[in-house]
Amino acid sequence: MTDLVIRNVRPLGKAATDIAVAGGRIAAMGTNLPANGALVEDGGGALLLPGLIEAHTHLDKTLLGMDWVENVVASDIRSKIDNEREMKGVLGLDPALQSARQVVMSIARGTTAIRSHVDIDTTYGLAGLEGVAATRERYADVIDLQIVAFPQSGMMIRKGTVELMDEALRQGADIVGGLDPCAIDFDPKGHLDVVFDLAVRHGKPIDIHLHEPGELGLFTFGMILERTRAHGLAGKVTVSHAFSLGMNDYLRVGRLLDEIAGAGVMLMSTGPAGVPVPPLIRALDAGIAFCSGTDGMRDLWNPYGNADMLQRAQILADRNNLSRDAEVERALDVCTFGGAAVMGLPDYGLKVGDFADLVLVEGRTLTEAVVTLPQRKLVVKRGRVVARDGEALVEAA
Amino acid sequence: MTDLVIRNVRPLGKAATDIAVAGGRIAAMGTNLPANGALVEDGGGALLLPGLIEAHTHLDKTLLGMDWVENVVASDIRSKIDNEREMKGVLGLDPALQSARQVVMSIARGTTAIRSHVDIDTTYGLAGLEGVAATRERYADVIDLQIVAFPQSGMMIRKGTVELMDEALRQGADIVGGLDPCAIDFDPKGHLDVVFDLAVRHGKPIDIHLHEPGELGLFTFGMILERTRAHGLAGKVTVSHAFSLGMNDYLRVGRLLDEIAGAGVMLMSTGPAGVPVPPLIRALDAGIAFCSGTDGMRDLWNPYGNADMLQRAQILADRNNLSRDAEVERALDVCTFGGAAVMGLPDYGLKVGDFADLVLVEGRTLTEAVVTLPQRKLVVKRGRVVARDGEALVEAA
Repeated sequence: MTDLVIRNVRPLGKAATDIAVAGGRIAAMGTNLPANGALVEDGGGALLLPGLIEAHTHLDKTLLGMDWVENVVASDIRSKIDNEREMKGVLGLDPALQSARQVVMSIARGTTAIRSHVDIDTTYGLAGLEGVAATRERYADVIDLQIVAFPQSGMMIRKGTVELMDEALRQGADIVGGLDPCAIDFDPKGHLDVVFDLAVRHGKPIDIHLHEPGELGLFTFGMILERTRAHGLAGKVTVSHAFSLGMNDYLRVGRLLDEIAGAGVMLMSTGPAGVPVPPLIRALDAGIAFCSGTDGMRDLWNPYGNADMLQRAQILADRNNLSRDAEVERALDVCTFGGAAVMGLPDYGLKVGDFADLVLVEGRTLTEAVVTLPQRKLVVKRGRVVARDGEALVEAA
Repeated sequence: MTDLVIRNVRPLGKAATDIAVAGGRIAAMGTNLPANGALVEDGGGALLLPGLIEAHTHLDKTLLGMDWVENVVASDIRSKIDNEREMKGVLGLDPALQSARQVVMSIARGTTAIRSHVDIDTTYGLAGLEGVAATRERYADVIDLQIVAFPQSGMMIRKGTVELMDEALRQGADIVGGLDPCAIDFDPKGHLDVVFDLAVRHGKPIDIHLHEPGELGLFTFGMILERTRAHGLAGKVTVSHAFSLGMNDYLRVGRLLDEIAGAGVMLMSTGPAGVPVPPLIRALDAGIAFCSGTDGMRDLWNPYGNADMLQRAQILADRNNLSRDAEVERALDVCTFGGAAVMGLPDYGLKVGDFADLVLVEGRTLTEAVVTLPQRKLVVKRGRVVARDGEALVEAA
């Protein structure tokens, strides 16, 4: 029983084909597929991509749709953390509504799965989790949403946070978050022991924000690798940002990347312009699962971001000085297959039998789509059309 | 005799006003200005900016509108130069048509003045200049266009190039270009002596591409400063890119920035993600005239770029880790007033008496416009509407 046929699309830029969807999965690909009474969409020769994967964002605290807030905070992470925790209350930020707003923007831009961190702290308790979990429930048919319990304000330095993290994981957070075990928590052993203990006890993966630069970050990386191996957590640990891998010591970083690959630790980089970043091609060549994301957007940290993972591929490619088409395509792959690998999404891709999470965009080549950022012509989630011509077919309000 | 009245606009985010234009200049600002039979546009409360300034690009060699060319070239500058010189002939690139295409894109995005480098070399002679000069003539009423004679393939290393540069300046190039006196030309004294001699003899300003990194770039900078002072060329010399000023030595770079300010040398940075950049805020605080540009776009060097100088302000701000509204506004200022200062554009701005080069965009604040990149609602050049709702009212074909 075919539900949907999309005619004349070019999967990842290859020869034009039709694609038939049944039961939320790709049922057939080929020319002149029979419609059998199913809904038919004309792809018009557009590029066909698998759904874009937003593997690192903070849905609970975007200011999208709220009054404009002038940013006057200092640029160091500690100041941004403290300012945000205070201002969320002043502004009366609603995590359910704000996360819905960003989810709708993401769907309009072709994202079919999101991993979001949510703040867990002693000021707001589990309010962020509850709000984003409500959004996860509300949009369950149109997007996959993973939630990371994230101790944004620190864990060892704020008594009561560990217990809240434990409770968050019991109440539905999917992943154990961590944050700068040295630079924010000032207790790398304590912090990482708690993170890995929570992961083991709850049987859940780990995703650690590691902004720590240079030698400090490499030191922490060593401790993360040691614990990943000791607990047998290959394929279950992601290190996000990993600025320290941008250190200007190619041989040393190269050796560490091989070690990271060997331990089955995964990486996330947003490709930020103003700080060192992990060398993308070297990391991919080492065999590391590598994903990307928008990070916080239009929030109390910074005004930037638009939830467009096609643009994120461009940013990531440009940040890594990639100009050749074949390299730009690898950056796009990070925002599709890389994200799916890190998030552990089953049956992701463009093969018959895969879930029908699909995006159509105009472009002669994949690289042209990455640099021109065409409107998403059609976005399909599990076989259902969820956005068309840049507009989501679901609402946030 | 009023020609145009735009009602209800907020100049640089300030209180709403009307603006009246006569004879290509701003004739009056205030509420309820009389129309006196002039054309009336409703600004609808939009932000009013002075025309955006594209102070560094390469109009002669974009591939816009041509067949897609897969980029397979190595990433070093020398390889890119040689590949481009060869491929321009293979592709039959037409500098007049290609520059027209990019100019139209720029106008649609609110740019009212462009400084373009054009390649001068012994393979193509003055063909680039002739093509872009034809475009300058063709669009004279709708955009200001300055042309830099640019020895892209090197000058001392290619016999006959100096004579071509001289001829280009006689035939209408406005500015003397230069390029990596050490790294490309391997003769800093010879290269800079020629550049400054051409400038003095033709009475024209200088704009030098300086990609040279670290100590090498600082060495060349010293030679440029010395010659600028010796020839009394304060306010006439621009150093573009200036990656060496991104060196991680704050005190030393700070002292050099003060010296640059003292010599009246100006800077251009596109805010590239993957290389060091001059520290924007420190340079502005030193009093340096600072502009920005798209650089080469959709060309044989790299596939990126969209000629949007509002987005360039965003890129520049993000690259310099600027998140506070007041800082983001300084990056926007670089793409308006900074560009006008470097290009020496007379009567630029939003005061009565200034030329009516105007852009209207939606946004609650200037920073919101920089991060959301709204379509340009209206673009006015010398009092004439040249673009509306993101579309130029002139054509390239």
